[in-house]
Amino acid sequence: MKLDAQWVTGFVDGEGCFHVGINTHADMKTGFQVLPEFTVVQHKRDVTVLHALKAHFGCGVVRTSHGDRMAYRVRSVEHLLNHIVPFFTEHPLKTRKRVDFEKFRRVILMMSAGEHLTIDGVQRIRTIARAKFLVG
Amino acid sequence: MKLDAQWVTGFVDGEGCFHVGINTHADMKTGFQVLPEFTVVQHKRDVTVLHALKAHFGCGVVRTSHGDRMAYRVRSVEHLLNHIVPFFTEHPLKTRKRVDFEKFRRVILMMSAGEHLTIDGVQRIRTIARAKFLVG
Repeated sequence: MKLDAQWVTGFVDGEGCFHVGINTHADMKTGFQVLPEFTVVQHKRDVTVLHALKAHFGCGVVRTSHGDRMAYRVRSVEHLLNHIVPFFTEHPLKTRKRVDFEKFRRVILMMSAGEHLTIDGVQRIRTIARAKFLVG
Repeated sequence: MKLDAQWVTGFVDGEGCFHVGINTHADMKTGFQVLPEFTVVQHKRDVTVLHALKAHFGCGVVRTSHGDRMAYRVRSVEHLLNHIVPFFTEHPLKTRKRVDFEKFRRVILMMSAGEHLTIDGVQRIRTIARAKFLVG
């Protein structure tokens, strides 16, 4: 199944999620781990579409999410930076999910500059991520 | 906001619903009223997208659905037959929602031939609509 870029944008406008998790993590110098994640969840009957998204973006994994739901998921900062962010920059989302994406994009750019490895950077990412949840 | 056909297909693959309701109705000769409906529901913050869908299809209404949700809705058999069905025939859905659409399309074609006005037709529509719910 080959996907058109505009179909992908429309489907993600409906079903996609741009999330930034911040967990406490004793092994990190800052005490925190920043975990960005792009996901699309579907009933397992549509796993073909999730595999088509994986092929389209050229990264990520398809895994069981919960119960009879499956997820296409990208967690690697490198893949998010080089595959996911450029795609949605070139093909803008049309719903308010675009606001989520813009904040997600800021966090990924900060992480690619290593800012999540300082206390100050984690605080700034937390502020951006919190603002996201007010919208989402 | 101008919508690309493939964006619309992707968004409806995620968020659209093709439904055939069958209600008892004393005024109808058959005792039943067949009510097909194409809907897309969104949080009210994305009402702009619903109006863009209305403009794209050239029919339907945007109304409050429930709570802070709004719906783009097409119920007219003429509009479903001449606007909605041709669009998704030309731009096939990629998820299993395509199966819902194919059954919906069969019902709309039967209704345009007046088959819902006979007891036998209502029974056949009911069989198709029931099969739909096993998938949906």
